[in-house]
Amino acid sequence: MHLDIVHGFGIEEFRTRVSRAQALMAETALDGLLLTSMDNIRYFVGIDSTFWESYTRPWFLLVPASGEPIAIVPGIGESVVRQTWITDVRTWPSPRPHDEGTSLVTQAISNLKRRYGRVGAELGSEMRLMMPVMQLNAISHGLSGVEIVDGTSVLWQLRMIKSPAEVSKIQRAIDIAGSVYAQVPDFVSLGTSEREIRRQFTMRLLSEGADQTPVVICRAGPGGPVEITASPSDRPLADGDILFIDTGTVFDGYYCDFDRNFQVGKATSALLIAQERVWEANEVGIRAARPGVTAGHVFEQMAKFLSSGDRDLNSNGRMGHGLGLRITEPPSVKLEDDTVLQPGMVLCIEPGLEYEPGKILLHEETVLITEDGAKLLTSRAPQQLPQLH
Amino acid sequence: MHLDIVHGFGIEEFRTRVSRAQALMAETALDGLLLTSMDNIRYFVGIDSTFWESYTRPWFLLVPASGEPIAIVPGIGESVVRQTWITDVRTWPSPRPHDEGTSLVTQAISNLKRRYGRVGAELGSEMRLMMPVMQLNAISHGLSGVEIVDGTSVLWQLRMIKSPAEVSKIQRAIDIAGSVYAQVPDFVSLGTSEREIRRQFTMRLLSEGADQTPVVICRAGPGGPVEITASPSDRPLADGDILFIDTGTVFDGYYCDFDRNFQVGKATSALLIAQERVWEANEVGIRAARPGVTAGHVFEQMAKFLSSGDRDLNSNGRMGHGLGLRITEPPSVKLEDDTVLQPGMVLCIEPGLEYEPGKILLHEETVLITEDGAKLLTSRAPQQLPQLH
Repeated sequence: MHLDIVHGFGIEEFRTRVSRAQALMAETALDGLLLTSMDNIRYFVGIDSTFWESYTRPWFLLVPASGEPIAIVPGIGESVVRQTWITDVRTWPSPRPHDEGTSLVTQAISNLKRRYGRVGAELGSEMRLMMPVMQLNAISHGLSGVEIVDGTSVLWQLRMIKSPAEVSKIQRAIDIAGSVYAQVPDFVSLGTSEREIRRQFTMRLLSEGADQTPVVICRAGPGGPVEITASPSDRPLADGDILFIDTGTVFDGYYCDFDRNFQVGKATSALLIAQERVWEANEVGIRAARPGVTAGHVFEQMAKFLSSGDRDLNSNGRMGHGLGLRITEPPSVKLEDDTVLQPGMVLCIEPGLEYEPGKILLHEETVLITEDGAKLLTSRAPQQLPQLH
Repeated sequence: MHLDIVHGFGIEEFRTRVSRAQALMAETALDGLLLTSMDNIRYFVGIDSTFWESYTRPWFLLVPASGEPIAIVPGIGESVVRQTWITDVRTWPSPRPHDEGTSLVTQAISNLKRRYGRVGAELGSEMRLMMPVMQLNAISHGLSGVEIVDGTSVLWQLRMIKSPAEVSKIQRAIDIAGSVYAQVPDFVSLGTSEREIRRQFTMRLLSEGADQTPVVICRAGPGGPVEITASPSDRPLADGDILFIDTGTVFDGYYCDFDRNFQVGKATSALLIAQERVWEANEVGIRAARPGVTAGHVFEQMAKFLSSGDRDLNSNGRMGHGLGLRITEPPSVKLEDDTVLQPGMVLCIEPGLEYEPGKILLHEETVLITEDGAKLLTSRAPQQLPQLH
């Protein structure tokens, strides 16, 4: 437990992020970044709010190529932004459907120091624009001599490398989830329903210090769950089940993302063989992750190991991903992802097998890429499946 | 408590929704609706998943102007969609950044029965596109003779009117939150921090049956909170505080959204006067809400009542909104919103005052518009502020 980890960051953390963004903007010929999503705005501002759950009022941050960020937020958000390090805060009385910040944003972009005539926005891969597309179009049409282009590569290059302070938040989220995984045998037994397991698991996450619990997946099935994307059902655990739990738990905005498997009663030998194989594949992946290799290389090493027998790879197309202010971030641990691993990247390494039709076994650990290799942030899953009775 | 309310809907519910959508598509000259957001897809499919938290893999639903919906989902999502009533499920091996469903979606739109050459997407007010904008552009460019236009008005016309089954889910979410509000004096007292209150409140929501707890706002301040958008701080409750709690708690995908205020120790007479006034304004709003009047009319009635003294209106620009699969939905209870209230609409009525600078008092109740008027879904807040010691 890291009880000394507090909420928030010092102002220098944000100034460094802005400087790094500005260096990347210079490289990619951008006069600024126009941001709308909670994760991107939080990254630069440090604001912690659940108001993004409502789609009525968009929020904006304009990070210029030089100088300090400009927050353009609905009136209701003004005082919370004024509590952060941002000094330039502009507001409009919202809701105002015919001009939900559009004219303020257009004006702010127009007044940017113009060098390239290009402003980057959240238009590309693994980004979501958190204003209506029609509004983006209206802003674009209101500009003259400035084009809104895709700024995704700047944002992901920036956010992929975590600062030590960011890693400490992720570590705290991991520790919270880890302590609840250790409690599973105390509150789950034969007959407990998936839904009840999720409820108990989530309550314990909160009790251990989680700020948010957006993802708690609990699926079980004979020898493994059939699928792992749906919310829990009312099905009770039965003898021979594998219970799969996966959680994206949040501390101070930062996610953990790792799973654990539990054996209910008897295991088949096919399962025991698969378990050994997937656990070992995770070892292979952790050892392969080091600075200078690609994310694709980590995948290849695990794939080679898993394919040496007669088992197919899982069909999810990747065996891991980045992690941070979102539950999944670039890179993808998959073939053809040629992102070169660098110190400061946090990577979930997640080999899996559908070892028999409709029986999935997935393992997941999280590492920090360091100068020397990979540092495990999760407490390694036991080699033998823990038993539930 | 409504312990008989189970998860899920019967297939007829979804068929009715599709039929209503198709009638609206005919009126607005659309050949189909292209959907990407969890709330819109869930509305038609009934899928319950937290995979939208990850931005790696977009999901798509194409609702044609006639015939059944087509789900186009990443491979990892196939089995969960196959468990729903949808029979046409198309998948691609994801992640595949160069074609993350783009070609499948383009093909499906191209093959739609063409009458108007227009397909509606989530481009407008209070909508968020849950694929990258660059991908929408790629899909648009790949189409010939079909244009992607804004389909927002169809979606909100449809979703604004709730079925009885939807109302029962909202009622359940409200009842869960209501029972936890009633417990607040049991676990909050002088000195409890906002953060600890949120933790305890959220755990009790789960214990009472909440599926998700995305929004739990706990803010306190002398005579009222300064602002109500930020997450809780570590500040302990002090004598003279008003504790404001607001929650968007989810049952089976449907939100509640209502707040409650608690007095800690002594109240000033300014507060007591404001409390009486805002509570009464809520009465005025509830009485004003009936079929045939506009959302703006409900605002006007409350505004008139609140302005009859020397107090300003709160600056948030509206005093209520719709509710459903999102915490806020159209209409807005505000001037100039001329949405005509109809039976089946669920409305949060939320008058507020900043009765002194930096002292906010907000009340909120939720009603269902019926043939005769408005039926209160929340248990009305007490006229006197409950005391915490």
